[in-house]
Order: sequence, then C-alpha cells, then structure tokens
Amino acid sequence: MKIVAATKILKANDQLAEENRARLNAAGVFAVNVVGSPGCGKTTLLEALFGHWRGRLRPAVIEGDIAGSVDAERIDALGVPVVQINTEGACHLDATMIAAAAESFDYAALDLLVIENVGNLVCPAGFDLGEHLRLVVLSVTEGDDKLIKYPAIFQRSHALVITKVDLLPHTNFKLDQAAAGMRRLAPEAAIFQVCALHGEGVAGLADWLVLQARAVPRSPSQSPRSQQS
Amino acid sequence: MKIVAATKILKANDQLAEENRARLNAAGVFAVNVVGSPGCGKTTLLEALFGHWRGRLRPAVIEGDIAGSVDAERIDALGVPVVQINTEGACHLDATMIAAAAESFDYAALDLLVIENVGNLVCPAGFDLGEHLRLVVLSVTEGDDKLIKYPAIFQRSHALVITKVDLLPHTNFKLDQAAAGMRRLAPEAAIFQVCALHGEGVAGLADWLVLQARAVPRSPSQSPRSQQS
Repeated sequence: MKIVAATKILKANDQLAEENRARLNAAGVFAVNVVGSPGCGKTTLLEALFGHWRGRLRPAVIEGDIAGSVDAERIDALGVPVVQINTEGACHLDATMIAAAAESFDYAALDLLVIENVGNLVCPAGFDLGEHLRLVVLSVTEGDDKLIKYPAIFQRSHALVITKVDLLPHTNFKLDQAAAGMRRLAPEAAIFQVCALHGEGVAGLADWLVLQARAVPRSPSQSPRSQQS
Repeated sequence: MKIVAATKILKANDQLAEENRARLNAAGVFAVNVVGSPGCGKTTLLEALFGHWRGRLRPAVIEGDIAGSVDAERIDALGVPVVQINTEGACHLDATMIAAAAESFDYAALDLLVIENVGNLVCPAGFDLGEHLRLVVLSVTEGDDKLIKYPAIFQRSHALVITKVDLLPHTNFKLDQAAAGMRRLAPEAAIFQVCALHGEGVAGLADWLVLQARAVPRSPSQSPRSQQS
C-alpha cells in the first residue's frame, strides 16, 4: 500500500511537471533546476552568473528552503525577480510548488527561470519540476566520494559544477576522481570547475547555459534525464 | 489519508526506537546519532575521536549511506567494529535499520555505539533511532546560515560540532552567528569547534562524550530531545 501511494504521488508530480514544462515552452522560457548539498554554494554561483547574463538573458529565480528567506534576499538585492518557497519541513521542491510560485512571474518578460532546490543530495533527485536542464553543484570541501555515496542525483543531472576550487589546496578532493565518477554515472554531462566567490570559471559556465537556453527544442514532450531513466 | 499514514510510520518508528534504547540500556551501551550535510566531515571526526577513546571506551559504528561502503572501510581500517547500512535511496536511517544492523554486534563487548546517519540536514531530524544523544556536525565551508535554513535538525540535537575550522580564514563563516543561532534553537546544547583533520579541539569533544556516556541515566524511559518537542 505504501509503495502504491508513493508511485501515485510520483506519477501526479510527473504530470504536473509536464504541465509546467509546456507552459515554459509556450512562453519560450528555459528552466534550470539547481541541486546540491546544503552550503555547496548554489546561491553564490547564481550571484556570479547574473553579471555574465546581463544584456543576454532575462533571468528570474525560485528559491526553495525549509525556512527563512536568506537566499531570496540576496537575489533580490541584485535586482533579479525572485520568489521564495518555504517548504515547512519538506526536503525537496515538487512540481506543484513550482506551478504556484511561477504565477508570480510575467513569463513574457523572462528568458530563463532558475530554480534553486532545497539543499539535499538525496530527495530532489526523484522529483521532476518541469525544468529543461538539471545542474548538480558539488563543492570541493564536501569530498570527491559524494558521487559514490549519492549516485542518483548525479546520474540524473545534465551538468556537474564543481565549486570552491580555490580551496582545493586545503582539501583532499581529487578532481580527476570526481570527473571519472561523473563520466561513469552521466557520460554526456558537462563538467565545470568554478570559484564563484572570486569568479574563476564562471564565464564559461554562463556562456554554456546561454547556448543551452537558445538551443533547447521547445516541444511539450521535452523532459529532463530523470524521466528517461 | 497521506498524513495519517505518515503519523503511523513515525509512531511505529518511535516505538521501535524505544525498544532499541531499552536494549542499549540493558547492555550499558551509550548510543550517539551523528547527523549533518554530505561532506561536513562526520567520518573524519569519528576517525579523530577513536584515538582519544583508546583504553577509555570500546566503540562500534553503524554507517548509513545511500550506496557504497567508503566510510565503513575507513572505520574498519582503524580496527573498530563497523556495519554498513545501504539505504538504497532512502534519505535517512530509521529505527528498524538500526535494530537489524545492531544484531551484528556483541553489546557486552561495547561501551559506545556511534551511528553515522545519511548525509542530510533535513530528513534525519524526524527519526529517533533509539540513541541517547544527537550530535549535529556543521562545517564552516557550508556557511553560518544553515541554522536559519534547517532549524529542526539543530533544534533536536544535544551538541553542535563546528568542523573544518582551519578553513575559517578562507570563508565568510561567522562563528558568533552560528553559536547565537544554536543558543536560540537549542539553549542547552554544547558547542564545539574542531579541525578533525589536524586534531584541534578533538580532545575536548572526546572527553565530553566520555562524560556523557558515563553520566547517562540508563532507564528505558530515557529519550532524546526529538521526542520531547
């Protein structure tokens, strides 16, 4: 019975996610779901990307957190439209939350919707939000063994962004181990190394995301890797 | 119906947790549930503690991970009895998993059972495992805002261990902000600062845990803070 219920919930979520994606496609808005551990540097990465997108892409952000609005305030301070979702204990965003939050935006004034998921390397893996691309963030201070311990979320992502590379000399993180792990789990995924705080590597990631946003075939049948596996 | 099911699951877990605790109490084994983000340094902290416990406490470890046995191999290499639980996707340990894993140990040969939970700042907060003490680990590279974003897990812990303090000069982490946040959420919790990799602060934490293990009233009614709130 429990398993049936879980399957039903996931099916309902998948259907709502497809509706979200159809709405995004119709408006020509590209959506990115950013996942990663608490404190891996998701918001700092977004802050760094906005500067590179100025005049090229009109972004908006949905922030997902258990509680508080710390991240939304940071995005708001940069003049980027933002909605904060407080999940009140829930460990991941779902398609219903995104549908509700997206009502606050004028899609006609946007090119890119960035969804920053709840900091969690486990639960967000199973929930399609209607995004076109899933980007997983891993900081070098977390260790390269995270790809072995949390395979699903890496397997279901289209890009791996390794953050805080300025701290590499102070850690035992092995870039080649992490890259090899990602190639094994998601052979077609792009891999980036950045220090969002000081800007190294951010321009390359920003350019790649602009290309992805422009190249995506905007058909309602488009779905992220999570749905193909 | 979903809410009823969730309540039932939590009630069943609480009952099993009490049975785990009664078994630990009867054997005089003190149990610690270690929670924290992926890569916050839980295993490195354990490795550092074992040296300080030699001749004072006989420890054993239960390792919880979605997949792999990386951490259990590290504990095993130090000659400490260890059981690896692979949750196969589940985002936290529960009392049933602990009951099954604990069968591998001879409680008469132990003083301390350390349970390293799945790396996750959200889901483990709600699940009593039968432990006597919950210890939350936060690395300075994650940022001091984690106490605002993930309040439940800090609120339900008896001690906060701030790790990787050697990296403080390279981060914007504010120790006073983190300490103030913890005092607000869990006024009676102890707060420690350590660098597990180089050993700073580990002796103090090791001594404190020895005292806790010896002082705990071993009655079956004993339950962690999670059950009092």
